[in-house]
Amino acid sequence: MRKISGATHLSEGRDAVVDDMVTAIRSLRDEFGAAGLAGVGVGSPGFIILEKGVITNAPNLPGFDNFPLRDEIGRALGAPVILENDANAAALGEKWMGAGRGFDDLALLTLGTGVGGGIIHGGKVVHGFMGMAGEPGHITVIENGNPCGCGNYGCLEKHASATAVKAMARMMGLGDDPTSEEVFQLAVGGNERAKAVFVAMGTALGIALATMINLLNFPLYLLSGGVLGAWDFFAPTMLAECSRRSFTFRSTNTRIEKAALGNEAGLYGAAYLPIQ
Amino acid sequence: MRKISGATHLSEGRDAVVDDMVTAIRSLRDEFGAAGLAGVGVGSPGFIILEKGVITNAPNLPGFDNFPLRDEIGRALGAPVILENDANAAALGEKWMGAGRGFDDLALLTLGTGVGGGIIHGGKVVHGFMGMAGEPGHITVIENGNPCGCGNYGCLEKHASATAVKAMARMMGLGDDPTSEEVFQLAVGGNERAKAVFVAMGTALGIALATMINLLNFPLYLLSGGVLGAWDFFAPTMLAECSRRSFTFRSTNTRIEKAALGNEAGLYGAAYLPIQ
Repeated sequence: MRKISGATHLSEGRDAVVDDMVTAIRSLRDEFGAAGLAGVGVGSPGFIILEKGVITNAPNLPGFDNFPLRDEIGRALGAPVILENDANAAALGEKWMGAGRGFDDLALLTLGTGVGGGIIHGGKVVHGFMGMAGEPGHITVIENGNPCGCGNYGCLEKHASATAVKAMARMMGLGDDPTSEEVFQLAVGGNERAKAVFVAMGTALGIALATMINLLNFPLYLLSGGVLGAWDFFAPTMLAECSRRSFTFRSTNTRIEKAALGNEAGLYGAAYLPIQ
Repeated sequence: MRKISGATHLSEGRDAVVDDMVTAIRSLRDEFGAAGLAGVGVGSPGFIILEKGVITNAPNLPGFDNFPLRDEIGRALGAPVILENDANAAALGEKWMGAGRGFDDLALLTLGTGVGGGIIHGGKVVHGFMGMAGEPGHITVIENGNPCGCGNYGCLEKHASATAVKAMARMMGLGDDPTSEEVFQLAVGGNERAKAVFVAMGTALGIALATMINLLNFPLYLLSGGVLGAWDFFAPTMLAECSRRSFTFRSTNTRIEKAALGNEAGLYGAAYLPIQ
């Protein structure tokens, strides 16, 4: 396994970014020999229009909207390219090399700036008819909860992301602009309001997971992301809430666990795309 | 297409019920010729343990718990038998011959005494690892809503089934024990409280559907069951709630429609099981 990392120089424009990607892949291909390049997997934020091989709705990738990324990289390298949403790729990576090894059905929730996710069924990513499946961040968990940029109230990501932890901590009077890490440290130090923030997070996660379990009856649900360090503060509430709200959870050996690969999950998943 | 109907004589015991089923199937086999019996599909309430071919947790089928129904029918008829949950079979029936024709991905919600359902993905029933997938009736739609026998609060079926319509109508002072049909007739007559019951039902359905759409991004969600007649009273709220709570619903051509086959859907689905 070899890895080349690089910054994404968006200020230099889209074509420079694509050139950097192609150069990095070429360098790996040369290292392993051209015959070793079965194909290229690309994980990206945003929605992926699979049949066209383009990205849409990726606000942090200016210039990429509807750009034929798959075909441009494929043309430059002379190899088949598969484009996939980064959270879907992460779910696939966990299945291939991480905490989901041996499972053909699993869901991953990534708790970061928002809450993303991916659903694997029968060993494959569930895309839905427009490539928009696996968006647990916008499940309604509290009917009239915190307002979300998507237009809804009470979305999971408004109650269980790192951003939500910060916002709830601010509302609880824990400083002007605390980081989620600072809220965690306050909880470690015994601060009851900081602990309450993670209880609220656990409640929201428990409701969302119970819903997914009732719908899917998958054997495994994985959590990843920066807030995972606070597991001991949110997981007890999450699991209790899930028990209360899902007969299926209570009566089967359904597992809710930490993902294993962290930020590398998407890399593994993308690498797995051409060989799956 | 031929159909033989019969009552389920549970008071005469399990074996009599199984004999009645086998006799009816034999009579159809004789009519069409033995070579025409590719197999037998059986739709049943309760959870189905697929690998064992048994039913569990079907309170209305005393004596059937863990009885080897699949193997007993198969032995009696000398043909392969597939057992399936009735709501899953209904979803499959709608896909094969009903409102889901041409769709490989769809979900069905049946609004009856409770809220059941089935999920079809890639043309096949999603079972989950214990055969318990597709239970939208116990999605939490109102965090601290009506208490449910499953131990949860605010389950979809406590806000959107025929039973829920009756209970909400009673709470609204619409009689001691109104039927859902009577509540519907009151709404038709312009009764504002009866209309409000269906608005509450539409809100709950909208929340649940938005969640399913955000997770699955399927192109089609079908509703069936006795309360469907009140569509004009609950659907506007359901669709508005769904719009508000799902960016995916707003930005794609996702369809929420009436199922077509009514009570026959499960029959079609069961018939489809051996030939799918």
